[in-house]
Amino acid sequence: MPMLGFGRIPVTDVSMVVEEGRLPAKAVVGELVPIRATVFREGHDAVNASVILTDPTGVQHRVDMTAVEPTGLDPWEAWVRFDREGWWAFHIEGWSDPWATWLHNAHAKLPESIDVPLVCLEGQAVLNRAADQATDEIQASLLRTTALMLDPTRPPDELLAAVDSIGVQHAMDANRPRDLVSPTKDYPLFVDRAKALFSAWYEFFPRSVGATFDEATGTWQSGTFDGCHERLDEIAAMGFDVVYLPPVHPIGTSFRKGANNTLVADASDPGSPWAIGSPLGGHDAINPDLGDFDAFDRFVAKANSLGMEVALDFALQCSPDHPWVTAHPEWFTTRLDGTIAYAENPPKKYQDIYPLNFDNDPADLYAEALRVLHVWIDHGVRVFRVDNPHTKPVPFWAWLLSEVRRTDPDVLFLAEAFTRPAMMHSLGKVGFQQSYTYFVWRTEKWELEDYLRELSSETDAFIRPNFFVNTPDINPLYLQDGHPAAFTVRAVLAATMSPSWGMYSGFELLEHVPPRPGAEEYIDSEKYQYRPRDFHAEPNLTELITRLNEIRHEHPALQQLRQATVHDSDSDQVFVFSKRDRGDVVLVVCSLAPRDVVETTVHLDFAALGAPDVNELVVHDELQNLDFTWDAHPFVRLTPDKPAHILRVALA
Amino acid sequence: MPMLGFGRIPVTDVSMVVEEGRLPAKAVVGELVPIRATVFREGHDAVNASVILTDPTGVQHRVDMTAVEPTGLDPWEAWVRFDREGWWAFHIEGWSDPWATWLHNAHAKLPESIDVPLVCLEGQAVLNRAADQATDEIQASLLRTTALMLDPTRPPDELLAAVDSIGVQHAMDANRPRDLVSPTKDYPLFVDRAKALFSAWYEFFPRSVGATFDEATGTWQSGTFDGCHERLDEIAAMGFDVVYLPPVHPIGTSFRKGANNTLVADASDPGSPWAIGSPLGGHDAINPDLGDFDAFDRFVAKANSLGMEVALDFALQCSPDHPWVTAHPEWFTTRLDGTIAYAENPPKKYQDIYPLNFDNDPADLYAEALRVLHVWIDHGVRVFRVDNPHTKPVPFWAWLLSEVRRTDPDVLFLAEAFTRPAMMHSLGKVGFQQSYTYFVWRTEKWELEDYLRELSSETDAFIRPNFFVNTPDINPLYLQDGHPAAFTVRAVLAATMSPSWGMYSGFELLEHVPPRPGAEEYIDSEKYQYRPRDFHAEPNLTELITRLNEIRHEHPALQQLRQATVHDSDSDQVFVFSKRDRGDVVLVVCSLAPRDVVETTVHLDFAALGAPDVNELVVHDELQNLDFTWDAHPFVRLTPDKPAHILRVALA
Repeated sequence: MPMLGFGRIPVTDVSMVVEEGRLPAKAVVGELVPIRATVFREGHDAVNASVILTDPTGVQHRVDMTAVEPTGLDPWEAWVRFDREGWWAFHIEGWSDPWATWLHNAHAKLPESIDVPLVCLEGQAVLNRAADQATDEIQASLLRTTALMLDPTRPPDELLAAVDSIGVQHAMDANRPRDLVSPTKDYPLFVDRAKALFSAWYEFFPRSVGATFDEATGTWQSGTFDGCHERLDEIAAMGFDVVYLPPVHPIGTSFRKGANNTLVADASDPGSPWAIGSPLGGHDAINPDLGDFDAFDRFVAKANSLGMEVALDFALQCSPDHPWVTAHPEWFTTRLDGTIAYAENPPKKYQDIYPLNFDNDPADLYAEALRVLHVWIDHGVRVFRVDNPHTKPVPFWAWLLSEVRRTDPDVLFLAEAFTRPAMMHSLGKVGFQQSYTYFVWRTEKWELEDYLRELSSETDAFIRPNFFVNTPDINPLYLQDGHPAAFTVRAVLAATMSPSWGMYSGFELLEHVPPRPGAEEYIDSEKYQYRPRDFHAEPNLTELITRLNEIRHEHPALQQLRQATVHDSDSDQVFVFSKRDRGDVVLVVCSLAPRDVVETTVHLDFAALGAPDVNELVVHDELQNLDFTWDAHPFVRLTPDKPAHILRVALA
Repeated sequence: MPMLGFGRIPVTDVSMVVEEGRLPAKAVVGELVPIRATVFREGHDAVNASVILTDPTGVQHRVDMTAVEPTGLDPWEAWVRFDREGWWAFHIEGWSDPWATWLHNAHAKLPESIDVPLVCLEGQAVLNRAADQATDEIQASLLRTTALMLDPTRPPDELLAAVDSIGVQHAMDANRPRDLVSPTKDYPLFVDRAKALFSAWYEFFPRSVGATFDEATGTWQSGTFDGCHERLDEIAAMGFDVVYLPPVHPIGTSFRKGANNTLVADASDPGSPWAIGSPLGGHDAINPDLGDFDAFDRFVAKANSLGMEVALDFALQCSPDHPWVTAHPEWFTTRLDGTIAYAENPPKKYQDIYPLNFDNDPADLYAEALRVLHVWIDHGVRVFRVDNPHTKPVPFWAWLLSEVRRTDPDVLFLAEAFTRPAMMHSLGKVGFQQSYTYFVWRTEKWELEDYLRELSSETDAFIRPNFFVNTPDINPLYLQDGHPAAFTVRAVLAATMSPSWGMYSGFELLEHVPPRPGAEEYIDSEKYQYRPRDFHAEPNLTELITRLNEIRHEHPALQQLRQATVHDSDSDQVFVFSKRDRGDVVLVVCSLAPRDVVETTVHLDFAALGAPDVNELVVHDELQNLDFTWDAHPFVRLTPDKPAHILRVALA
């Protein structure tokens, strides 16, 4: 008989599911992931449900689900950990639970002495059925003994005490009979390595590191890969584990931009690394100013030796001088006047950039993009930051990322899409392991609260956020007075709200000057010129950043996304949230008016902190190394010197 | 190349969709139905979308979609009417829109005199391409002429005026080139006859109509089908179009309930019609007290002659005397002591009822249920009210309703499930054409507002509500003081909020007495005894009910569910909403404290009333036959005599 989507025990509204299961949901090894569904049945008999996981080797694992609040909506859930990388699948089984049905009836009838012999007879049948299927002989024996104890001549309280014992409960949890088992279809889930979720990114321009200006000739000497090794030591010492480089390829000279994005470059202007391609080569070549492939390999090896991975920029666009322009004009758009289309946002023109056209010759262009990636994968790159993926077709990414996953499942892609939610969500759905976010523009309390909830519980099946505090393109308005406390707050929020965070070189030096008031860019942008820096200049945030990365490593709660809770405070300027994983609980109390002194009362949800039954908690401030004893409504005072608490919650 | 769920132009979050398209969404002939999706693309070029409908004959129809607010979330929609009953399907095509892309660029570039020759060249190409595919020769000619007008020597404002003309816009709407057309999968939708959505139900017990008590013998003479013809006249005169009868089958005598649900019946107690089955027959038989099949046929014919349909109760449960009990004990549950299980809600026992067991012998029991339905279908019954469907397996209903739809697609089923949302939703999803609702318990303003929004825009793909103001089982607490204004308010709300509404006999007589304070039942319940009534007794609501049904027939806006808007008022006791279909707009302003005088200011959303650009509206009160001229913030006074306005909005 046709079931038309509903099994004997209906199971609906299954999550974690992406696009009806046509695309995999996201998880990483060791992460705790909620799988939820609505499960219900006709009539009064008891319903139950299980998640059936199929691991990458094809072995199935059953995880019992639990009915949760609000019970009137019939929600069930199980929190699941995945213990290995690769393709998993899960389905949910709804089933009829004869033991729970019987137990409910027994509690209703036995105290009233109703139908006692029949209740005992039926209880014996369920207990013996469980015993028959028990593999543990002790449990089987306990169940059979309990069945024998269901003697209708005993007093009802004795009968109920027998079946309510902890031992019987445990034995029944393990061996509970399941009737009318009704599976859903299988839903895919891809488990990435842990770094897909938990990472700390540092972005810098190698050409700036050790770059020197020759006053005599008026020209610059570029920094090189080999000149960066010491800087890598410093970056690793701050606790970062991904160093991300802007494109390292030859830079075009046609329409090259000069300093501060001027239309005319002089001979000493190095050009934007995103204007990729020159007669020296394209996306598979290295700008000789930085070194050669051997130097690149030494750079990668040095980073790896420090526990860091190198992330390259994958920016699918070309300068007019890119070798593809002559070899494959069909990969670009030729306009009706015979010219190749440059980038435009009419009336603005970007003549230094030729966008690729993915529709003229998709097979060859797709293949070339994959070949280019493999050039760098073969040189040890396992992480790519993808430039403007939202300007290329979504199915291109779906294809490319699935091809890479097939051969190199540990390669990770970060989507740099600052655009509308539908596109950002879709890029995550088709395979980007991480995504830039709106974090840099989320500064109000209600925005941060909503965004934490959204990312941790609404879009977590397909979006893994990376909270960058700044980028070469984004000098946040919030920081443009250069106040160290504002930088501190943004670093604390990024490092604790999101398991992945990142910064672009110069943040730690409080760089903040825009080219003009209100512009969200940096003056003297490193995109168009060399910017050697003295990272030991004061003031700097190196110590704070180092400590933040240490705290992140000490706390599993901060290494995950899905177990987050917003707490109340009486001030619109004090944002409070906690994260929790196993016994590790971290509470963050952060001022959003860091230039002022803010005092308020915080209202803590002790249950969300794992301490539902106590009146006080000891919390340890990981930044200030101080202990406090807090009740559920502590008074806090946040100052420009100490604008945030990151608190370890000590559970008994 | 694998698309993995995303076409070249992604289309996601499609509605009206039920269970990923495994079950059909709901519509009726003539109803305006919104089809929505999120449609977006990479880069800056313009995106567009269409709904492709496939009608029951397999012919496809294209309906253009429109981008709607909030644009940042990329929502698109089309409101679609279905012009015939049966299985439809729809899919959505996302596509690239070269005309919109060009027009946007032309407006950005031409006024700045940028690239004028190239812009003209590209405009000509799109216009000529549209002309080539135009079937209307006049439009084709206009497009070609417009292409010729794109002469770069003309001034930019002339060029833009040419392409912005209404004629060109219309010709382009009809012949717009579509690139990169990307279809979703097909989603099913079943279009029912209009009565599935729009109906007015009246429930009564035929045995009470003309029942007489013989003082001498102390016994009752039952009312009969033939004795009801005059009553049918009166019901039709009130404007009802469905008369619904409790079960008409022989009633069991074992454990028969007496008056007021007592455990012992005396010889003159007729028993509950829901205790179905006796030696005289079961679900395919007629209680001889009411007449025979010929009398039933005359009853149906009489109702039909008055424009009404007869709805029978389909109550799948048995008295212990039902013929199935001996012929098919396997259709019941035999307990371990050898007895057949009666209904229980421990510790309560309902020994007059044997529930069916659908799992022992599903094939035969399912087939018997279908056979029983066809007995009544063959006697002209096209509407069934299904008793307690939530106590039977969901897949049973999925099967049964799809079997009936296959042979008799005009047969309608109303689900009497007062239970949790998951089950109620699922019964709608698997095919029930109408559903009882929580209306009787929604009495507060916020509850009514939320419920109207939920039913009109959240669950409308699968739930069609029927707002009963009372039932034999539900004597609403709200009405238990018997105040006529309270009855008026509930009738007005039911008749206007929901396109289907219903009442159980006695409501019009203000019957309201419970058997004990706080009980949601009727004293001397008609379920257990004869209740002949004098429907001409005063006070009664016959005139109001008649007028409500007239107003419903005069206003297409009230015959549909999906175009409803809640408006604000300053009082928690004044609920305001409007409904609209084509040019018909109805505004309801209803007191929720009908025993008091309530005065307040109402805040009208004129755009939702179809009058975005005016300052005043003339509204005509359909109950009081009065005109008012209202601005957007009218002051209203509602009294126990006139607790509600039902206003026709006169649009210019």
